[in-house]
Amino acid sequence: MRLSRYFLPVLKETPSEAQIVSHRLMLRAGMIRQEAAGIYSWLPLGHRVLRKIEQIVREEMDRAGAIEILMPTLQLADLWRESGRYDAYGPEMLRIVDRHERELLYGPTNEEMVTGIFRASVRSYKDLPKNLYHMQWKFRDEQRPRFGVMRGREFLMKDAYSFDVDEAAAKRSYNRMFVAYLNLYARMGLKVVPMRADTGPIGGDLSHEFIVLADTGESEVFCHRDLVEMGPPGTDQDWDSDLQHLVDQRTSLYAATEEMHDATRFDAEVPEEKRLSARGIEVGHIFYFGEKYSVPMKAVVAGPDGVERPVHMGSYGVGVSRLLGAIIEASHDDNGIIWPESVAPFGVAVINLRPGDEAVDTACQQAYDHLTAAGKEPLLDDTSERVGAKFATMDLIGVPWQLIIGPKGLASGEVEVKNRATGERLSLSLDAALTLLSAKAGS
Amino acid sequence: MRLSRYFLPVLKETPSEAQIVSHRLMLRAGMIRQEAAGIYSWLPLGHRVLRKIEQIVREEMDRAGAIEILMPTLQLADLWRESGRYDAYGPEMLRIVDRHERELLYGPTNEEMVTGIFRASVRSYKDLPKNLYHMQWKFRDEQRPRFGVMRGREFLMKDAYSFDVDEAAAKRSYNRMFVAYLNLYARMGLKVVPMRADTGPIGGDLSHEFIVLADTGESEVFCHRDLVEMGPPGTDQDWDSDLQHLVDQRTSLYAATEEMHDATRFDAEVPEEKRLSARGIEVGHIFYFGEKYSVPMKAVVAGPDGVERPVHMGSYGVGVSRLLGAIIEASHDDNGIIWPESVAPFGVAVINLRPGDEAVDTACQQAYDHLTAAGKEPLLDDTSERVGAKFATMDLIGVPWQLIIGPKGLASGEVEVKNRATGERLSLSLDAALTLLSAKAGS
Repeated sequence: MRLSRYFLPVLKETPSEAQIVSHRLMLRAGMIRQEAAGIYSWLPLGHRVLRKIEQIVREEMDRAGAIEILMPTLQLADLWRESGRYDAYGPEMLRIVDRHERELLYGPTNEEMVTGIFRASVRSYKDLPKNLYHMQWKFRDEQRPRFGVMRGREFLMKDAYSFDVDEAAAKRSYNRMFVAYLNLYARMGLKVVPMRADTGPIGGDLSHEFIVLADTGESEVFCHRDLVEMGPPGTDQDWDSDLQHLVDQRTSLYAATEEMHDATRFDAEVPEEKRLSARGIEVGHIFYFGEKYSVPMKAVVAGPDGVERPVHMGSYGVGVSRLLGAIIEASHDDNGIIWPESVAPFGVAVINLRPGDEAVDTACQQAYDHLTAAGKEPLLDDTSERVGAKFATMDLIGVPWQLIIGPKGLASGEVEVKNRATGERLSLSLDAALTLLSAKAGS
Repeated sequence: MRLSRYFLPVLKETPSEAQIVSHRLMLRAGMIRQEAAGIYSWLPLGHRVLRKIEQIVREEMDRAGAIEILMPTLQLADLWRESGRYDAYGPEMLRIVDRHERELLYGPTNEEMVTGIFRASVRSYKDLPKNLYHMQWKFRDEQRPRFGVMRGREFLMKDAYSFDVDEAAAKRSYNRMFVAYLNLYARMGLKVVPMRADTGPIGGDLSHEFIVLADTGESEVFCHRDLVEMGPPGTDQDWDSDLQHLVDQRTSLYAATEEMHDATRFDAEVPEEKRLSARGIEVGHIFYFGEKYSVPMKAVVAGPDGVERPVHMGSYGVGVSRLLGAIIEASHDDNGIIWPESVAPFGVAVINLRPGDEAVDTACQQAYDHLTAAGKEPLLDDTSERVGAKFATMDLIGVPWQLIIGPKGLASGEVEVKNRATGERLSLSLDAALTLLSAKAGS
């Protein structure tokens, strides 16, 4: 992409309405624009990152055997009456009446609808396990939307739903999502700790939240320090096995959100030097809730004995749009965002220090073509902005690598490569720079 | 994908509520499920095709220089009051009130919002042309939703919006979309004719609809026969040129929708043997409407003379979800759907005629691995269904190629390759079959 043709409305001033750093940086970097309280447009830069995060989530869901579908945003109120949640849900549910006076709602989650899809066609335990997921916009009419995409009203969620013949099988499905979640966050450069959590309006008796530790976190969390540094399980698993040892490894150490915290247990189980209490950002929440929906909604399968029984279900959410905020909270400095390479909107910024200078233009074009062919998705700054402003913009929007090409360096056969995260700069030949960047930068 | 693990709820009976063939086949093939009048869930098979169509549209928009963003589904009523359309739009607009009694609406289109995005940051003619597009779910509260995804209420639309300094530049933007549209439909195997069309509630004085001819089309259309067989312009264009000759080629021959039809002109301009009147399905609609939104909404740029002037705009819609219906209307037979390879949910179906037979299982697995590595996205039928039912399902869901592997053939070193569109069958060795399919099938 050439910056002169792109749409990157960066802001020079810090917007006063933004209280936390990710919100400020997303506005300043021209990633989002508020359209109403808690409702955002995703501008080109934000949209690119959103799609990369979506794709990582998709790949890890697929790998773990989940199957992608897409449910609509609007749902019938009557469907929610079957589970009893239409009246129970409260003012966060956006209720809508259409031209024929039918009651609809903007889905805040999809347990009822996916149960409806399942019960319409699955009849036998032989068709299980099944896990259906989708990535669709949801709406929760928050009393006080704030923190940009971190607590928006219209937000993108990945929600998966598992169906199993009994509790033991359902727990294997739960474990698969537990492990897949650890992998997908790790791919985005996040350190995430799974914590025992309250089940809230989804229900059930087994639940974990996946928490990114950050000073600006919305709630307090408590855990054993070792959990923070424990690496992801890795994607190369036997996904048909129960994966129990991987889950045990991470649930045998103390970790709980504020609502589930037990100070006595914490002190007893965790040596003092390992006790960590910190602020956390929830980026995922998984639930096993057994027959909570399958009984009232009559989602049953015949077992090996021919007798029908309600399926055991779980649901698994990832806050896809919220993740952008969480990643920025975890990875930024005074100059702006520092994107992990896996989710960066562009792999390399090619900065032309003197557009119009033939040698520089040619070298930039050559670099751009080479990096494009190498799949690095370069952003070429071919604008006539001041040099200082160019550097500031690229630091602000957080492209992981910068390739800086100017007339002076070029005259002595050199260009500069800068790493956004470390600030490290290298002077080398254009060829050497392209070889380095083709090997390193981007996906 | 292994069919035993997939979710493909095909129906044996033809659903009585479906009046047209695409709706019937999408329901029978387990692609969609109705959740409310005109509101559908996309089941795995339908979702795969939807995403392929989306990707083709995206690639052709990007190629033509449009930049992807994503606007939210819900919009503020006040934004629509600026253009005067809030009161003008009528009962097809779904109006919503949130918990704080703020008036929202579910976007049926996005002229107002994108104009708001543009005017917030673009100040100079030097930043033009710009074309911003998104693919987002829209809602139009149709009085009588019908024909499945062809006339749904919640539907996926690609809508692009161009901004130019004057009418001449705006027409170049219009031409770019005109040409890009012809290419994107051709990539989906559709024969599409651009026709002069009414501008309706979008407004403006220049507009074309892109029409697929099909007996089940919703309206009558009239055109010169040569337009139907005219190939696409091709993607290898100089997108910075005006492309006028390509547009002229296709607009110099008579083509008009019912509302714009002029029988006298038709008879005068088109020789009798070239006159075609047929039913048509609209799959795209483009508009040039000049200053209709930029004047009331004050979207202005400074020109070369420093004087501010309202920008000239156009908008360009593709009915992404509707395209699935249109493609099926144009490509099916008595046995089911015949997907063009570019949008097929799977490239090849590998049909195991005797699961449990070691040699057959091994050969199927080998074929599956080979085709997966070749990027052909195979679907392996490893179920214990009857052979006849297996064939019927694969014909129904329209996978372009079938690789049929059974114990008898294998004993004599042969497998069968069937082409879904032609019905042609070939017996050959597994190696030869895989070589053939790797070269031909899929994207």
